[in-house]
Amino acid sequence: MHLRGIFPPMATPFTADGEAIDVDALKHNLDRWLATGLAGFVLLGSNGEAAYIDEDEADTLVAEVRSHVPAGRLVIVGTGRESTRATIGASRRAAGLGADAALVRVPGAFKTQMTADALVRHYTAVADASPIPVILYNFAAAFGVNLPTDAVATLSAHPNIVGLKESGGDVAQVAEQVAATPGDFAVVVGAAPALYASLCVGARGGVVAVANVAPDACVRLYELTVAGRHQEALALQRALAPLARAVTATYGVAGLKAAMTLAGYRGGQPRSPLLPAPPAALSALSARLLALQQFFEGPHVHTA
Amino acid sequence: MHLRGIFPPMATPFTADGEAIDVDALKHNLDRWLATGLAGFVLLGSNGEAAYIDEDEADTLVAEVRSHVPAGRLVIVGTGRESTRATIGASRRAAGLGADAALVRVPGAFKTQMTADALVRHYTAVADASPIPVILYNFAAAFGVNLPTDAVATLSAHPNIVGLKESGGDVAQVAEQVAATPGDFAVVVGAAPALYASLCVGARGGVVAVANVAPDACVRLYELTVAGRHQEALALQRALAPLARAVTATYGVAGLKAAMTLAGYRGGQPRSPLLPAPPAALSALSARLLALQQFFEGPHVHTA
Amino acid sequence: MHLRGIFPPMATPFTADGEAIDVDALKHNLDRWLATGLAGFVLLGSNGEAAYIDEDEADTLVAEVRSHVPAGRLVIVGTGRESTRATIGASRRAAGLGADAALVRVPGAFKTQMTADALVRHYTAVADASPIPVILYNFAAAFGVNLPTDAVATLSAHPNIVGLKESGGDVAQVAEQVAATPGDFAVVVGAAPALYASLCVGARGGVVAVANVAPDACVRLYELTVAGRHQEALALQRALAPLARAVTATYGVAGLKAAMTLAGYRGGQPRSPLLPAPPAALSALSARLLALQQFFEGPHVHTA
Amino acid sequence: MHLRGIFPPMATPFTADGEAIDVDALKHNLDRWLATGLAGFVLLGSNGEAAYIDEDEADTLVAEVRSHVPAGRLVIVGTGRESTRATIGASRRAAGLGADAALVRVPGAFKTQMTADALVRHYTAVADASPIPVILYNFAAAFGVNLPTDAVATLSAHPNIVGLKESGGDVAQVAEQVAATPGDFAVVVGAAPALYASLCVGARGGVVAVANVAPDACVRLYELTVAGRHQEALALQRALAPLARAVTATYGVAGLKAAMTLAGYRGGQPRSPLLPAPPAALSALSARLLALQQFFEGPHVHTA
Repeated sequence: MHLRGIFPPMATPFTADGEAIDVDALKHNLDRWLATGLAGFVLLGSNGEAAYIDEDEADTLVAEVRSHVPAGRLVIVGTGRESTRATIGASRRAAGLGADAALVRVPGAFKTQMTADALVRHYTAVADASPIPVILYNFAAAFGVNLPTDAVATLSAHPNIVGLKESGGDVAQVAEQVAATPGDFAVVVGAAPALYASLCVGARGGVVAVANVAPDACVRLYELTVAGRHQEALALQRALAPLARAVTATYGVAGLKAAMTLAGYRGGQPRSPLLPAPPAALSALSARLLALQQFFEGPHVHTA
Repeated sequence: MHLRGIFPPMATPFTADGEAIDVDALKHNLDRWLATGLAGFVLLGSNGEAAYIDEDEADTLVAEVRSHVPAGRLVIVGTGRESTRATIGASRRAAGLGADAALVRVPGAFKTQMTADALVRHYTAVADASPIPVILYNFAAAFGVNLPTDAVATLSAHPNIVGLKESGGDVAQVAEQVAATPGDFAVVVGAAPALYASLCVGARGGVVAVANVAPDACVRLYELTVAGRHQEALALQRALAPLARAVTATYGVAGLKAAMTLAGYRGGQPRSPLLPAPPAALSALSARLLALQQFFEGPHVHTA
Repeated sequence: MHLRGIFPPMATPFTADGEAIDVDALKHNLDRWLATGLAGFVLLGSNGEAAYIDEDEADTLVAEVRSHVPAGRLVIVGTGRESTRATIGASRRAAGLGADAALVRVPGAFKTQMTADALVRHYTAVADASPIPVILYNFAAAFGVNLPTDAVATLSAHPNIVGLKESGGDVAQVAEQVAATPGDFAVVVGAAPALYASLCVGARGGVVAVANVAPDACVRLYELTVAGRHQEALALQRALAPLARAVTATYGVAGLKAAMTLAGYRGGQPRSPLLPAPPAALSALSARLLALQQFFEGPHVHTA
Repeated sequence: MHLRGIFPPMATPFTADGEAIDVDALKHNLDRWLATGLAGFVLLGSNGEAAYIDEDEADTLVAEVRSHVPAGRLVIVGTGRESTRATIGASRRAAGLGADAALVRVPGAFKTQMTADALVRHYTAVADASPIPVILYNFAAAFGVNLPTDAVATLSAHPNIVGLKESGGDVAQVAEQVAATPGDFAVVVGAAPALYASLCVGARGGVVAVANVAPDACVRLYELTVAGRHQEALALQRALAPLARAVTATYGVAGLKAAMTLAGYRGGQPRSPLLPAPPAALSALSARLLALQQFFEGPHVHTA
């Protein structure tokens, strides 16, 4: 398994009434993404609204994506649940549906009890039972618990744990994680504003929301950095950052989906309790898409 | 509906392999609790390990408890999920199984997007659709989002929202919530160390973990306060606090279940990733149960 | 030393150019406060803008207040500094100027190094050297470090440490502090919204900002609680809370000083970088003063 | 003024009784540092124990350092106080004693009132009055208030504000600060674990505690990055990180001073309430100094 490059944490399109996954929209989006240099897809992450998706919907989503995505691109599925047993169950189901790897978030239900020891046991049990490789997923601000670097180091020795998605945006912590793990263990980052700097300190790629909207720009940033063209990479990082912040910190998933629609994808609306993006968001997102387009050569804004 | 008095946030007993709910143990515990002055039971709260229980297990639990508990005692069921639609679905199922009220936790999946507006819309949609009364459930430290007092005030005007469980332990906030809501809206508290002081400022009762272990002491504390016997109530509050902290902040659900076993209930072990209580916890819990027993008249420690 | 009752954390009036303490205004305020049942005064606390006052100004302030306040009322002076040596120096100077006790805040300059051990050594050294009794001062939200209850318990055995001002507003923590210390060690609280509930659980008094503005209401609340007239005390607590929050959490010291001016005291403006209270604050404060006046019998709003 | 390169936030040596600055030790250290490529010195920052130093001691320190350091190296002095007026006073005194620039920390005494507006007014007033250029100093974790990037952008237009020291270690924030300010405004970072990545995204230098101990390694890291030799820079960053963390996050100023002594400087002990480094710290620090020495060519560990 070759975990490197750029992956969108795929937004999940729903039908207009919010009651089902919109499979047509999904295929429309996948077709566009497959025309770019994306290394694969991360399904059922935070930006995929995994928290709002039933278990049977999750299975449908994995099956549809896998049938549509050729073997050369990775299909990574979020299978972390709060309990160890449910996480194992979800990982086995994803494997059965053709997923390449399981992305397992830190369980946060009883924050104060999630010691390093508890987390190491949890991940070890999941990795022992999972038929597909496991990727750790740390995002302390969202899950309320930080996976300590020592625990990452311990877990990186497990033959079925192949990497870590770190979404905190703390580049010094990324550098520590890289330094504490073997060369074939891949740290990928989940915060676009820190993407270039994280690649500088040894991250292997990014799982960044903005790659749903502007995949070419993200892939180019990755390639420039790998090629050692640092000045160009930094310039692109700066051009990308305003849009990246808008589709995460500022407007959240509703903003991400609105930006996708503006860029010609089929985003739709998030599920409740998330609210649709307000009108002010649409104009701000349009301006940032346009600014990135003017910087970068590709046609990122839908002109119809 | 008369929401006042003491309710245990019921711990859920599992079979030894952790794979199913232990119905025999459940009935054993209910029989003991029904011999006390508890006003009812809260199922599938945090201390009930709701995060680790599948939807079909949840239904089994509600049905078993309802069939065992007479109509005079309230059966309140945690039906909060991350999405509005799943919360409505769980509330309807609980109602169909005979629950008296639905306890709906603040959804925390996208913390920064959970504005007062989003939360008011979420709870309104749930209360509109729920066949049984809704109780708000705020616990910022656990869920990562605080339900603002203004939103509580707005929601208290909904005819199908009858109360609030506040678990933060901030007595000044409890006082504000009481002052901002009508007299027939009940604020109950979820933090035993703040129980007496919260009753002083107008709370109507408590949903406190330690009531699983020492129900008589909790009920007595409630009755003393209601009767205006403040000095006795404060003395009992102080006697109860060390055990209350041990079964929550210090040792968590594993400690709560261990204390239940020590006190003659059938606690069992929590599900993974929670770890069993360490040996040091058992001796600390024994000492605190004994100290409370010596203070209070009832036989709280199993002597077999 | 008899540390109980209500103390204002005295706001410090400055001359119009902000360059000096306004001694005339100070005496005007003291004369009015001395006509009430206040138990004394706390100088150079947070609300006294101690952080903005030079050492020689501090000495002037203590000397002026002491010369104006009769021996029956306590003059307590904030002498906490970041270093142990400066704290000892300030305590000795305050003693020489006639202060009754030294209020010593938790030093917060190196938060992560302020272990319980470091804090116990610091307070012990200060108490050993201070000619006047020491009162601990804990306010984790402001100072960035929490003084653990175990450390309070240890320090309460020192013959020259006589009490604790706890400003966090967590009533359960106040209850623990009371339970962990001897009967002659006085816990007083620094958060008016939690005043009544704290007195219920054993606090001996309050050092609350709103006592600068509405001393009679605060004293009455204290007396009602001590007399066991809980319903009246709770009603007064609720009437007091909106004004109390406005002069602390909402508008800060600028709001406190504006409310003082509205109530006939001479508040003046805070020192920069604090900004003067905006016009919206003045109308909000007026409304809350009026509401309290209508509840309570005394003339709290200046009618000129 | 040319603010770039590496500066130690100079540790302040005290005499054995802790009562005075040890001028001999100071000169010993300066002589060693002046033999390296350090761009200058930052006096009276956090690591200089500014919080524990009296105003007259501060003046002595500035005068001694200035008389010992040739004009080619910058002497930057921490002149931030809580009040605007005290900050202006300290900046004027530092200027009179020959300082090249004033480093002004974010005032944190009334955190909730330190809005962007209040901070912009504070820094503008200081910069208007200061005879020497002003450098902003942001360190939210230590001061409790974050200086927003918008405020930095506004302030960067002031002709007497020439740069920003950002100590938070959030590289994405550093990138935003660089992007939001003119090319002649220098952002320097105060967190060694993020030094290399920060230089990648446009920082001009570092004010890092570990430069007190290992100045050559820090200067070399800076030079390698500027020269575009990224792989070597990253390798050196990784070699430096364990020591850097030990003298800040882990052991604090006591650890920094102990490491200085181990490396042949005269560190001495910090002032109380800081405790001396425990024996375990000394062995950990020795091991990390040795590891860095083995990586890097220079003699960083005193061999006498």
